[in-house]
Amino acid sequence: MKALVYQGPGKMALEDRPKPEIKAPTDAIVKIIMTTICGTDLHILKGDVPSCAPGRILGHEGVGVVDQVGSAVTSFRPGDHVIVSCISSCGKCDYCRKGMYSHCVSGGWILGNTIDGTQAEYVRTPFADTSLYHVPADANEDALVMLSDILPTGFECGVLNGKVQPGSTVAIVGAGPIGLAALLTAQFYSPAEIVMIDLDDNRLEIALRFGATTIINNKDGKAVEKILKMTAGRGVDTAIEAVGVPASFITCEEIVAPGGVIANIGVHGVKADLHLEKLWDRNIAITTRLVDTATTPMLLKTVQSRKVDPRRLITHRFKLGKILDAYETFGHAAQTNALKVLIEA
Amino acid sequence: MKALVYQGPGKMALEDRPKPEIKAPTDAIVKIIMTTICGTDLHILKGDVPSCAPGRILGHEGVGVVDQVGSAVTSFRPGDHVIVSCISSCGKCDYCRKGMYSHCVSGGWILGNTIDGTQAEYVRTPFADTSLYHVPADANEDALVMLSDILPTGFECGVLNGKVQPGSTVAIVGAGPIGLAALLTAQFYSPAEIVMIDLDDNRLEIALRFGATTIINNKDGKAVEKILKMTAGRGVDTAIEAVGVPASFITCEEIVAPGGVIANIGVHGVKADLHLEKLWDRNIAITTRLVDTATTPMLLKTVQSRKVDPRRLITHRFKLGKILDAYETFGHAAQTNALKVLIEA
Amino acid sequence: MKALVYQGPGKMALEDRPKPEIKAPTDAIVKIIMTTICGTDLHILKGDVPSCAPGRILGHEGVGVVDQVGSAVTSFRPGDHVIVSCISSCGKCDYCRKGMYSHCVSGGWILGNTIDGTQAEYVRTPFADTSLYHVPADANEDALVMLSDILPTGFECGVLNGKVQPGSTVAIVGAGPIGLAALLTAQFYSPAEIVMIDLDDNRLEIALRFGATTIINNKDGKAVEKILKMTAGRGVDTAIEAVGVPASFITCEEIVAPGGVIANIGVHGVKADLHLEKLWDRNIAITTRLVDTATTPMLLKTVQSRKVDPRRLITHRFKLGKILDAYETFGHAAQTNALKVLIEA
Amino acid sequence: MKALVYQGPGKMALEDRPKPEIKAPTDAIVKIIMTTICGTDLHILKGDVPSCAPGRILGHEGVGVVDQVGSAVTSFRPGDHVIVSCISSCGKCDYCRKGMYSHCVSGGWILGNTIDGTQAEYVRTPFADTSLYHVPADANEDALVMLSDILPTGFECGVLNGKVQPGSTVAIVGAGPIGLAALLTAQFYSPAEIVMIDLDDNRLEIALRFGATTIINNKDGKAVEKILKMTAGRGVDTAIEAVGVPASFITCEEIVAPGGVIANIGVHGVKADLHLEKLWDRNIAITTRLVDTATTPMLLKTVQSRKVDPRRLITHRFKLGKILDAYETFGHAAQTNALKVLIEA
Repeated sequence: MKALVYQGPGKMALEDRPKPEIKAPTDAIVKIIMTTICGTDLHILKGDVPSCAPGRILGHEGVGVVDQVGSAVTSFRPGDHVIVSCISSCGKCDYCRKGMYSHCVSGGWILGNTIDGTQAEYVRTPFADTSLYHVPADANEDALVMLSDILPTGFECGVLNGKVQPGSTVAIVGAGPIGLAALLTAQFYSPAEIVMIDLDDNRLEIALRFGATTIINNKDGKAVEKILKMTAGRGVDTAIEAVGVPASFITCEEIVAPGGVIANIGVHGVKADLHLEKLWDRNIAITTRLVDTATTPMLLKTVQSRKVDPRRLITHRFKLGKILDAYETFGHAAQTNALKVLIEA
Repeated sequence: MKALVYQGPGKMALEDRPKPEIKAPTDAIVKIIMTTICGTDLHILKGDVPSCAPGRILGHEGVGVVDQVGSAVTSFRPGDHVIVSCISSCGKCDYCRKGMYSHCVSGGWILGNTIDGTQAEYVRTPFADTSLYHVPADANEDALVMLSDILPTGFECGVLNGKVQPGSTVAIVGAGPIGLAALLTAQFYSPAEIVMIDLDDNRLEIALRFGATTIINNKDGKAVEKILKMTAGRGVDTAIEAVGVPASFITCEEIVAPGGVIANIGVHGVKADLHLEKLWDRNIAITTRLVDTATTPMLLKTVQSRKVDPRRLITHRFKLGKILDAYETFGHAAQTNALKVLIEA
Repeated sequence: MKALVYQGPGKMALEDRPKPEIKAPTDAIVKIIMTTICGTDLHILKGDVPSCAPGRILGHEGVGVVDQVGSAVTSFRPGDHVIVSCISSCGKCDYCRKGMYSHCVSGGWILGNTIDGTQAEYVRTPFADTSLYHVPADANEDALVMLSDILPTGFECGVLNGKVQPGSTVAIVGAGPIGLAALLTAQFYSPAEIVMIDLDDNRLEIALRFGATTIINNKDGKAVEKILKMTAGRGVDTAIEAVGVPASFITCEEIVAPGGVIANIGVHGVKADLHLEKLWDRNIAITTRLVDTATTPMLLKTVQSRKVDPRRLITHRFKLGKILDAYETFGHAAQTNALKVLIEA
Repeated sequence: MKALVYQGPGKMALEDRPKPEIKAPTDAIVKIIMTTICGTDLHILKGDVPSCAPGRILGHEGVGVVDQVGSAVTSFRPGDHVIVSCISSCGKCDYCRKGMYSHCVSGGWILGNTIDGTQAEYVRTPFADTSLYHVPADANEDALVMLSDILPTGFECGVLNGKVQPGSTVAIVGAGPIGLAALLTAQFYSPAEIVMIDLDDNRLEIALRFGATTIINNKDGKAVEKILKMTAGRGVDTAIEAVGVPASFITCEEIVAPGGVIANIGVHGVKADLHLEKLWDRNIAITTRLVDTATTPMLLKTVQSRKVDPRRLITHRFKLGKILDAYETFGHAAQTNALKVLIEA
C-alpha cells in the first residue's frame, strides 16, 4: 500500500509498504478514506519529536472503513465507517478510567509517532473499541476528519479548560487552525466577546468570518494595550494560548483578568517566564493539556446537530498520491492560506 | 492609644496615636483583644510593599470587641466579640458578589497596608457587616485569631485550589506557618499522603506532629528525586508552594503528576521559569490566589467542631507593649522556632 | 401616584397612593419606566400567596430611573437608569454571601409580596446597591425588563440547574413565558436537541420560532412515548418542568435519562408522586430553585452582546393607566396569545 | 463446587455446582476467599428482584484469587489477589466511558442477579480488566471485601452525591450497614455534625462509636422536630436516605436546609410523596444512584492509608459450608446485631 514515511529530519517519501496486520485481539485494521496533516507532523519532520523514529508512517487523523477486527473487538465490524482518534485509549488503565486518555499507559498519542499512522491506505488502530468512533449514517465525512484531533484539541485544551461561559470575554492568541478550532467551539458557550490575536491579516479575516468579535494584528506589539483598553483595564476571563512560543504565553499572562484562566494549547519547545511577582495575587489558573479526545462523542453530536461546521477549517484537497504537495501547501500556510488540507486515500 | 507604626524600610515603633473614628456609615471601631504578626508585615518592613506608606499602623489580623458601629452597620453592635478578617469586602462590587473578596474594588487587603491596621488598641474596620465575623459564645479566641488570615490562606490558596481529595497525594513545599496551615486544613479531605518539604528540621518535626505522613529535608536537593521514587515516578496530585521563591515553585513543577495541580500560596518577588516544554502535555493546572476569606464561616465551623485546632500554630505570647520583642521573635524564627506569635492588646 | 393594588382574592384596582419614601439608608426610590406582569401576580390574585396581604401594590419586575437614594447607597445616584431585580438581596447574610439571594434573611422575594411593588409610578427598593443593576448606556430597556425575573428564572432554575451542555438533549415541559425563557437561554450552551412539550399549538409554534428542534402537543398523552422513541429509549439529559402541576413533573420523571437532571421551575401548589421505585437506581438529580438573580450581570452581557433577544417574549404593550386591561390580556393568554405584556408607567 | 443457590421466593440451598468456565475472552475465573451478604440478597429471596431467576448462585461481593483469565485479559494473571466489584463494567460503552458503570450496557449489577455470583467457591467475572481490582501486597483482605459494594455505595450515593463538606451538617436516616458505611466515609470530608437517625438503639450506639456526633431514636416520631431545633430551624446541608421506604425519604424532605441535598441510597419498592408545594422554592437537589464503584481505587487508597477501617462493619464470620447460618444471622439483624457477615470460602 502507499504510505507517507518519515525518513529522518527534513525527509519524507511516499513509499510502498505492506498492508498492516492485526497484532493484538483489540486491534482493528482501518482502510483510510480521508486523512489530514497536523502541525505536529511538521514538528516531526523538523526532528523535534524524538519518539518518532525514521521509517515511521506519519498521520494521526482520519476517517475510514473497518477492514478487519481482532478477536476481542466487540463494537466494530468490517464495513463500519469510523473516525480514528488521534489518541489511543486502552480503556482500562487508571488514566483512561478517569477520562484522561492522553496519558493512557499503553496508548496516548502513539499513531504516527511510536507506531505507524494514518497517512496511508490502511492503518492498524490499537484498542479499537475505545479509540474509534462510529460515523453516523447521514454524516459528512469531511467534517468528521476534524474530529480526530483539531476540534477536540481546541475544545478540550482551550475552551473547556478555559471555562468559557455565557457573557464572558475570551482572547485567543494565534489564529492558525488550532486557534480557529478553539474559536469555533468557544461559541458553544455564547461568550460576549472573542478577541483573536495574530500577525497574519488573512487568518484574522478568517477569524472574523468564523465568529471573532474583534481581531487584533499584533505586529505593532500593542495587543495587550488594546485588550486592556477594551476591558477597562480588567483583562479577559479566558486567554487561550494557541501558538506555542514564550511571547504568546506572556501575552496571555498580561491580559488575563483576576479570576481568569490561561488555557494553553500550544506545543512549547522552550520554557517561558512566569511572572509570579505580578500573578501570585491575581487568583488565576493556568492549564495545560494534551487532548484526551474524551469529548469526541459530545462533539459528534454538535456537528450532527449543526452547532458547528468543522468543514470551514478545510481549505485544500489532495489525493494520497499527491500528499507531498499537500505537505508543501500546509507547510507554507502563510503563502497558501492553508488551514486544514484533506487527503483522500 | 498604643500602636505599632511603620516608619519606612527597616523602621517601626510603638507610638501613641489617637483612637480611630467612624468615617463611613459602614465602618466599625473594634477594640483589639489579640492580634498577631504575618510574614507580610516583615515584607512591609523590608520595604517590599510600596502601597504601605510610612506612618501606617501595621497588622491585618485580630480578634476584638466592637466599640462603635456606623449608622449602616446592621449585623454588629458594640460589645460583640468579632474576628477581624484580613480582607475587607464591600459586599457590593462584582468581585465581592462572586466571592472573590480579595479583589474588592474598594476593599481587599487594605488593613495595615493602605489604611491603619490591627496592631494597636483600636482599629477602624471598613465594611464591617461583610468583613467582621461573630465569635461564637463558647469559642476559644486564641484559635480564632488564626482565622483572620493564616488558616483561610492555607485552606483557600493551597487546599481548595489544590483540589485535595480523599486518598490523594499532597506535597507542601515550605513548612513555615502558612505551609503548616495548609497541612492542617488539607486533612479536612483525608488525603492518603502529605509530604512536607523544608530545609529546617525543627519545622519538619512540627509538620510530622501536625499530620504530615512524610517529611523531607531538601538540604541535599534530593526532594524531587525522593518524591518521584515514593510515587513510582508519577508525582503528586497536589503540589502546594508555600515559600514564594522560584526554586520552590520549580520543585512543584517537577513533582506534579499528570492531571495534578500546583497551588501557589507564596508571595513572589520575582518571576520563575515555567517549563512549558515539559508541562504543556501534562494536563496540569497552576493556580494563584490572594486569600478571599470567603471560607471563614466554614472554617469557623471546623474549629468549633474540633476538626482542626489552629492554636497549634501559636508558639509565643506577648503584650502589645512588648510587640517589638514579638517582631524580633517572629523575625528570627529559625532561632526562636516561632510560628505564630500572639499579641494581647 | 397611580398604583395597582391587590384588594384580596379576585380583586385589584388602580388606586392613587402616596409616593414611597426612603425608610432605610440602603433604600432607593425608583421611578418606574416600564413594568410587566408575572404568573405569580395571578397566583396572588387567586389568593394562593398568603404572605401577600390585601392593600399591597403588586409587581416585582421593572426598569426605572433612580429618584432618591438612602445615605448608605454608594453605587447608584438619582438619574441612573436601573433594572429592578425581583429578588432583594441584603448582600450580608450567609445566603447572600453564597449567591443564594432568594433566601436572603431580610430580602428575597419581597417586592409586590410583603412590601409594595413595581406596578406603580414609584417603588421603594430595599438594599439598592445589591438589588438594582445599572442599565448600560446603549441598552434597549424593553429587553431589560425581562431581566428582572423571567430570564434569570428560566436560566438559573431550568438551564443552569439542568446542566444543559453542548450536544445534549433537553426537554422543556410547558411553553408558557417561563418555559420559553428557558428555551431561549438553553441555547447559550448549544444542546443538540430541545424538545418543547405543551397543549397549546400557538405556544408550540412560537417555541419552534424561538429555537426548539422538536415540538410535541401532548393532548394525546403520547409525549413520553414520543420522546423515548426519539432517544432510542434512553430519555433526555435535561428535563425542565415549567408548569407547576404534578402531571408535568411526572412526565419529567418518565423521560429523564440515566445520569440526567430534572430541573423544576414550576410553582407547585400540591405534592407530586416521586416514583422512587423506578428512579432509585437511575443516577438522576432533581433540582428546585427560587430564582436567585445571581446571574443578572452575566445575562446582561448576553443581551448586550446579542446572544439572546428577550424582547421576543414581549407580545403586548399597555400604559399604566390601562394595567387592568394588561392583566385581562395576560390572564387570558390562551385567547390573546400573550407572553409578556409591557406596561409603561 | 459449593454454591448458595436461589430457588425461588423464600428458598435457597447450598448446592454442588460445576466450576464456572471462561465464556468470553474478557472473563476471569476467581477462586473466592471471602464473600459477604448484602441487603439486596434478602430482597432477591423475598422475590422482589424479578431479574434474578431461580437457579441463580447469589452474591456480588468478595475477595479472591484469580484462577484463570480469558485471552483478552491483560491486567490480571492467575494467582493475583483481587477485589470483585459488585458492578461489572465493560469499559467501552458510553456509560462506562463517563464513569457511570452502574448503567453499563452489557454489565452493571449482573453478578448474583442475571449471572451466577460470588457466594460460591468460584465465580466467573465478566470484563475482568475493568471489574476487578488488585489487592495491594500488605492489605487486610477482610477490609477489602467491604470495597465490593457497601463502602462505595455509602460513599458515592450518600457522601459524594450529598456534597458533604468541611463544617457542614449531615443527617443520615437509617443506621444499618449502608447508613453506617455512609457515616464512615462522610468523615473523609470533616463535616461539623453527623446526626444519625434510626429506630434501633443498638445501631445508634454503634453509630456513635463510628463517629456520629448526635444520635436520634425516632420511635417517638420527633426526629424532624429535634433536627430543626438543633439547626435553629434551618435544617441540614445533606440528608442521606439509607432505608428505602417513603417515611424516611419524607423525613429527608422535612430536614433539608435551603441549598441542601437529599442523597438517596435506599432501594425503594414504592413511590414516595414529593412535597413540591414546600420544596419548589427551597433550592435543593435530590439525587438517586446505583453505585458505580468508580471510586474503588480512591477508597482503596483511603483504606490503605488508614483513613477508614471498614472492618468495623464486620460483626460475624462463617465458613461457606455454614452460609445458611450466615443468612439467618444477617436476616435477623435486630436480634443478632449483625452488620456485615464475612463468609470464608
